[in-house]
Order: sequence, then C-alpha cells, then structure tokens
Amino acid sequence: MRISELSADTGVPVATIKYYLREGLLPEGERTARTQSVYAEGHARRLRVIRALIEAGVSIAEVRKVLEALDDPPASPHNLLGAAHAAVTPPAAKGDLDMEPAERLLERLGWKPGVCDDDLVAGVARALNGIAQAGFEIPDAVMTAYLESMRRIARAEIAGVPTDSPEAAVRYVVLGSVLIEPLILALRRVAEQVASAERFGGDQERPSDI
Amino acid sequence: MRISELSADTGVPVATIKYYLREGLLPEGERTARTQSVYAEGHARRLRVIRALIEAGVSIAEVRKVLEALDDPPASPHNLLGAAHAAVTPPAAKGDLDMEPAERLLERLGWKPGVCDDDLVAGVARALNGIAQAGFEIPDAVMTAYLESMRRIARAEIAGVPTDSPEAAVRYVVLGSVLIEPLILALRRVAEQVASAERFGGDQERPSDI
Repeated sequence: MRISELSADTGVPVATIKYYLREGLLPEGERTARTQSVYAEGHARRLRVIRALIEAGVSIAEVRKVLEALDDPPASPHNLLGAAHAAVTPPAAKGDLDMEPAERLLERLGWKPGVCDDDLVAGVARALNGIAQAGFEIPDAVMTAYLESMRRIARAEIAGVPTDSPEAAVRYVVLGSVLIEPLILALRRVAEQVASAERFGGDQERPSDI
Repeated sequence: MRISELSADTGVPVATIKYYLREGLLPEGERTARTQSVYAEGHARRLRVIRALIEAGVSIAEVRKVLEALDDPPASPHNLLGAAHAAVTPPAAKGDLDMEPAERLLERLGWKPGVCDDDLVAGVARALNGIAQAGFEIPDAVMTAYLESMRRIARAEIAGVPTDSPEAAVRYVVLGSVLIEPLILALRRVAEQVASAERFGGDQERPSDI
C-alpha cells in the first residue's frame, strides 16, 4: 500500500509517518519510483504499536528502545522483561536518593538485591521521596494494600506469559508491561470514585456541594 | 526567610521559584525593599508540594488546578476527589472513542453511570483502545486481577481519609490520589521482576542469556 493508504489504515497522519521513517522507528518501504514507496501489513502493525506507545505517554527515545527489545529480544523472558522496563525507566540519578526506605519496602514484595536493575529500585525510592517531600504519609493499611495488590497483579501477569511462541512471549512481556500502565491508573481513579461514593455518598445526597 | 534561603530549604533553584511566582503557583512574599521579599514557612510547604507534583509528572497547568482544589476545596470529600481527578485527567475527546467496552468493564468495579466524571471513564476507554490498537489482548485472569486489586486499593485508600480535620482530608485526598501514581507503577515493575524471577529464574541460572 502507499503511504496515504497506510495513513488511512492506521489513523496516523502522513506527516507523522514520515517523521517515524526519518527517526528510524519505522523501516523504509519498498521503493517503486523516485518519490514513491509501498508499505506492507507489517508496517501497519508496527505503526499501531508505535502509536499506542506514544499515546501511553512513552517518549520517542523510549519507543525506540521498546522496539529494539521487540526486534532483538534477549533469550529468556526474565531478561526480556528487564529490557522492556529499562526502555521506559529513566536512569537513576541516585546521588541524592536514599535507597534504604525503598529497599526495606520492596523486601515485603519478595525483592532481594540483584533481582532487578537498580534503576527500578531507584524509581520506587524517587516516588517515596516525592511523597515524603510533599509531607504526605501513607497509612500502613494502605501501603499493605499497594504491596499485596501489585504482587497479585504481577503474579497473574507473569503466569500469563505465553510459552508456545517466542514472538508471542516478546509481545506480551514488552507491550504488557508498558501499555497496561495507563489502564491501571485509570481504573484506580474510577475505583476511588466508586469507593468514595460508597463511603461519603455521591452528589445526589449532597445537593449543597459544588 | 529570603528567596535564597527558601531555595536552600526546599532544594528548588531560585530561578524556578521565580517562575512559580510569575505563574502564580506560589503567592508573593512580603515585600521588605524594592527588590526584596521575605517568605514564610507556608511558602516552603507549598513549594515542596509543587515540586513533588512536578516530579510525579503533573504539568504546570495541572499543578495549578490541584492547588486550586487544595486552596478552595469542595465541601464533601467525594466532590474533593472529583476535583483532584479532574485536575489531572485530560478532558476527553470522546468523538472517536468507543465508551461501551470501558463501561462494561467498569461495571465489574461497581461503577454506575453518574458515579464519576465522564472524563475518567474516557480515560479507561482510551487506555483500552491503545491496548487493542497495539494488538495486545489481556487474559481474563489478568484483567480480573487488575479490577479486584484496584478495588482493594481504592477501598483501603478511601477508608483512610481522615475525618478529624478538613485540611487533613483535603491534603490526603488531593495529594494521595495524584502522588501515589508513580509509586504504584514503580512497585508493579519490581513486583513483575520478582514474579518473573520466580517463574523463569534470574540471570544466575541462565548464564547464556544476554
């Protein structure tokens, strides 16, 4: 198909497709004339993945690394997950970060030193630091709910890694770890509203509120 | 304290503090000379909140709305939560979004039409849409884990809303809903690594892997 058809097929504007081609995220099509190329179904599939990652808030530089993990995956699913996480986790500037509270917390998740890249632990440390800086304290029961829920989610996700085809495993691990993040945050917001309506009552019961 | 001391106290550079002053996020200090103002402990507290929100990925425009919810909170905790969510949820461009799959999913969370702003439902629809576009399918058992975990988290969070002081409730709801997001995502990544090491073994057992 031509670039205009690729655009119509995926909903991605032609100018954006050209940008992805220049950035090397999308491989060149097959040249059929000096100014014309044709693109295959594989281009459309890859373009949809790129668009989904961008819409999930992943930067161009990070998309490039996620695509590299998809194109040239490490052999074991565990290292694949590491590559996917590394693609979307900023390198830690650990100089001024106190890692100890994060490590103590993560032990409750079953974490041990060396089980994952330090940058992931630094991500937890940075989040805890931001919360503490703002003067916010997480009640114990709430923190326990975070830890146990994330453990439950992670176990279900990892149990679902397909082992029949390496390509399916790669897609599942790389896309699943990244693309699910906006869904989890969006579900939490709605769940909070439901729980809050249950505890405090919704608008209907309190017509005097804004 | 002077602006240099406010900077030293909070770790926010003077130029950034001046930017927040110009943007109206931070109120002016008390002028003591033509080019000099003094700032109180309240300025430092507010500056730490602003910095934590920015570091959590909240935009300047969203920080402004979060601060408005803190400064002029609706009377009921439920509407307060709505204001906090509205501050950080982009208005939905629902035109091309199919809301029905999101609504069907959210019913499993106890959601009913009207229980929250449509923009939150659109957030779920957008996330589902991105996942589907990328050709990714969430296994049923995994989706159930997401829904039940978010419900558990939300209930623990809302049960923890302090009712002794309105100011404490406002801080808890507004900051808790927003600042916790990076923590949840960071914990999930580490939990995935732990679960993956449990299922597939870590680097040690597979020396031939990259």
